[in-house]
Amino acid sequence: MKITGEMLIGGAARAGRDGAIKAFDPTAGQPMEPVFGGATREDLEEACALAKAAFDTYRHTSLEARAAFLEAIADNILEVGDALVERCMAESGLPRARLEGERGRTVHQLRMFAGVVRDGGFLEARIDPAQPDRTPAPRVDLRLRNVALGPVAVFGASNFPLAFSVAGGDTASALAAGCPVVAKAHSAHPGTSEIVGRAVQKAVRSAGLPDGVFSLLFDSGLAIGQALVADPRIKAVGFTGSRRGGQALIAIAQAREEPIPVYAEMSSINPVILFPSALAERAEAIGKAFAASLTLGAGQFCTNPGLVLAVEGEGLDRFAAAAAAAISEASAAAMLTPGIHAAYCAGVSTLEDHPQVTTVARGRPGDLFQGQAGLFSTTAEAFTANPELQHEVFGASSLVVRAPDLEGLRALIAALEGQLTVALHVADGDHDQVRPFLPLLERKAGRILFNGFGTGVEVGHAMVHGGPFPATSDGRSTSVGSLAIMRFLRPVCYQDMPKGLLPAELGDANPLAIPRRIDGRLELPA
Amino acid sequence: MKITGEMLIGGAARAGRDGAIKAFDPTAGQPMEPVFGGATREDLEEACALAKAAFDTYRHTSLEARAAFLEAIADNILEVGDALVERCMAESGLPRARLEGERGRTVHQLRMFAGVVRDGGFLEARIDPAQPDRTPAPRVDLRLRNVALGPVAVFGASNFPLAFSVAGGDTASALAAGCPVVAKAHSAHPGTSEIVGRAVQKAVRSAGLPDGVFSLLFDSGLAIGQALVADPRIKAVGFTGSRRGGQALIAIAQAREEPIPVYAEMSSINPVILFPSALAERAEAIGKAFAASLTLGAGQFCTNPGLVLAVEGEGLDRFAAAAAAAISEASAAAMLTPGIHAAYCAGVSTLEDHPQVTTVARGRPGDLFQGQAGLFSTTAEAFTANPELQHEVFGASSLVVRAPDLEGLRALIAALEGQLTVALHVADGDHDQVRPFLPLLERKAGRILFNGFGTGVEVGHAMVHGGPFPATSDGRSTSVGSLAIMRFLRPVCYQDMPKGLLPAELGDANPLAIPRRIDGRLELPA
Repeated sequence: MKITGEMLIGGAARAGRDGAIKAFDPTAGQPMEPVFGGATREDLEEACALAKAAFDTYRHTSLEARAAFLEAIADNILEVGDALVERCMAESGLPRARLEGERGRTVHQLRMFAGVVRDGGFLEARIDPAQPDRTPAPRVDLRLRNVALGPVAVFGASNFPLAFSVAGGDTASALAAGCPVVAKAHSAHPGTSEIVGRAVQKAVRSAGLPDGVFSLLFDSGLAIGQALVADPRIKAVGFTGSRRGGQALIAIAQAREEPIPVYAEMSSINPVILFPSALAERAEAIGKAFAASLTLGAGQFCTNPGLVLAVEGEGLDRFAAAAAAAISEASAAAMLTPGIHAAYCAGVSTLEDHPQVTTVARGRPGDLFQGQAGLFSTTAEAFTANPELQHEVFGASSLVVRAPDLEGLRALIAALEGQLTVALHVADGDHDQVRPFLPLLERKAGRILFNGFGTGVEVGHAMVHGGPFPATSDGRSTSVGSLAIMRFLRPVCYQDMPKGLLPAELGDANPLAIPRRIDGRLELPA
Repeated sequence: MKITGEMLIGGAARAGRDGAIKAFDPTAGQPMEPVFGGATREDLEEACALAKAAFDTYRHTSLEARAAFLEAIADNILEVGDALVERCMAESGLPRARLEGERGRTVHQLRMFAGVVRDGGFLEARIDPAQPDRTPAPRVDLRLRNVALGPVAVFGASNFPLAFSVAGGDTASALAAGCPVVAKAHSAHPGTSEIVGRAVQKAVRSAGLPDGVFSLLFDSGLAIGQALVADPRIKAVGFTGSRRGGQALIAIAQAREEPIPVYAEMSSINPVILFPSALAERAEAIGKAFAASLTLGAGQFCTNPGLVLAVEGEGLDRFAAAAAAAISEASAAAMLTPGIHAAYCAGVSTLEDHPQVTTVARGRPGDLFQGQAGLFSTTAEAFTANPELQHEVFGASSLVVRAPDLEGLRALIAALEGQLTVALHVADGDHDQVRPFLPLLERKAGRILFNGFGTGVEVGHAMVHGGPFPATSDGRSTSVGSLAIMRFLRPVCYQDMPKGLLPAELGDANPLAIPRRIDGRLELPA
């Protein structure tokens, strides 16, 4: 597949004329061809107008047609074959196995949402039948279903050029909900974005859907992305990236004449909490596994374990020694972009230079834009007194905080900001001590996991990739897993609607065979 | 029941010391005893601290215990008997029958949420069992449930002193979700608020729940309400009132270090759309019914029909004549407060004095703080050119806008802001013309109703009392009906959690007998 550098505006492809973007190969340290042209205001205007025009038609596609469309996107992505993986490797510096896995995840996500659409539970169909004989007043007939919010702006993430980008979780869930998508490509992987964008565009065409169901814009600066969020035709935003970037988009969305929801996944240091019996039984094994999770993919995961909390003592010492040994052997690895590499180095320097922080281990040094792993240590007192030690360092860096006792451990957790994940390492002997921590942990994180690490987010129905602010801007939601579709829906009630006008999902006979609540009682289709 | 003028802070009752509030009888034109003392910062601090302390215990009550608690509140409200209705009549100027009905609705709401809690569907329980043999990597065990957000601030509304106030829909749904409530009483009905607050407090005590599950504060100005929204222990806000008031609270909530959701129900003019065949068949009957809905309760409903849209012609003339005849006969009625009455008079004057607006009818004049109904008329062109004609006039005032044809009618609707309701009057012969309007209407309103009016909101499972901004601040939600509970929940995922630590709703055997999704497939309890 030839990469042309063109944007996709509805069914068309054309080169943007506002500035130039080139991908950068962080392994080779070289910019890559071709040139991608940035979108102009006119391009944005056209993409939004097409999305608006497509909305009502698209959201009224049958469940089966919409599911088949999602599956066609998945098929088209696979059909590109190795060209996609190779371009993506060059643009991201990520290794082949990781990207083949990520492609599998992306395709799985689209197919999972096809299943969610066919199931129909997301429609939240409810019928309260009329009671004409009720006294003192008859009861009206009420029927409720969820409808799609409207066109959604999706901002691709740098660290998952497939699974969190042009046809990633935000796009898949928005399309599943019935929302057209205007995607803003991440400038770190424009070629990957174009390839995937064309796979979506092709699926739109072969499904006979209106062109505006999908557009892909490049942005040579920040202005087009910001204008996209401000556009009155856009009704929700999906974003994965930095806290600063997310907050800028939130401010724009809230300042609109009609404010809209922004689902921004931003900042998390994903505490790992080591309980005493687990340390006593297997401190070394945990330390080794921790180092593997920390250094995976140069640590460039939203769920990277950036913080370790435990009660000081011999067990924690053994954990730290094992982790240090493994990290010292860890090769440096190319980071996604020179900018991310520079930010990582700055974050690590802050820790290294901090008077109350000890450097426990550094990984093998690298060259060019490779990140060198780092493990640091501090006391509970210092961690509490220095809020900057809670800031995310995006990459393979982690800080061990030594609490004096379990009460001190609890105080450390209570002072944390919201997190995507909290990982607990426990043995049977710890359960009674863990139990009282759970309510606190539930208030702090979207996912609580045991004897593992947050990296490797399973895409399923029971996954939550979300959490209280600042992990995300809306802790009531998840951006991974089938529940993510709920972000792009709103309920509408129909009162005493003539039978001939009722939407199919609310007909008396349940023609779509979906789960429904009748008079408050959930009923499954036969 | 003696009304003492005291606030309720957890289990205690004490007089506030920051300023004095007196209720005002709008029928008698007299202030009422006793004096209610406004809360100080210390009172607020104590209420929030108690709410936070109560949170984890309260949210872990069993479904049955929580349901019984909600029912006890309902019983306690009824047990007060006529003293509640009488105080409420005096404070609001609303008639007995209306308030007895509203009390019934309030009690019904609490009991409905007890049923919702017992059902357990709101927990959204999901289990994706582990697949240890999956290749290339085994699948972890994932389990998801909704948990309560945290303490909720509830601002009582002036126009529903029972159903949208201290133990109204926001409080009932927040308590059902497992959230403690700190209620800020509306200064227009402090006595009613105290009586109802004591009914809640008594239920907290008899259920053996922690005191902080409920507090009730009076505010002699705006500062306590604002500080309540800003307090870091408050995790969500329910509000029903003016657009200005709602937006002020939203701004505070968004400026917090941890922003929180505000569910503000604010401003709606509830268009009534009359289709040609319906007008041809029964213009007079619709006009009469419209006048009755418009003047009900002095027009003081969020769903009051403040706008009529139709194609000009003989049918619309007959509608207007019938409505005018009925409105001319309508008695003036006491409005809730002198302030609301003054705002109503100002809004009506703007219409009366507008060069492009014709006065079609006025109701009988009243005295003191009585609202005099008004029906006005204008052209589509004038309505479009004068955005101020779209502003809500809270009270029994409505504006008929005459469109040149159906295309013009469509353009009028497209230019409207978000609405709580849209009411369509249609006959069988209109269906083909109505159908293409539906997608547009779904984008504009939370409830679409046929051959009726939006007043008289049925509390059920399929009700939506919500809608796009500015009808509400969050069109993804409803503040009436059982779906309202979802506003106060967020999902948490448990990965590979040891069986002994799992919450009951996620145990293998479904011990709570609730609906759950297993591997994405919805299953009902046996």
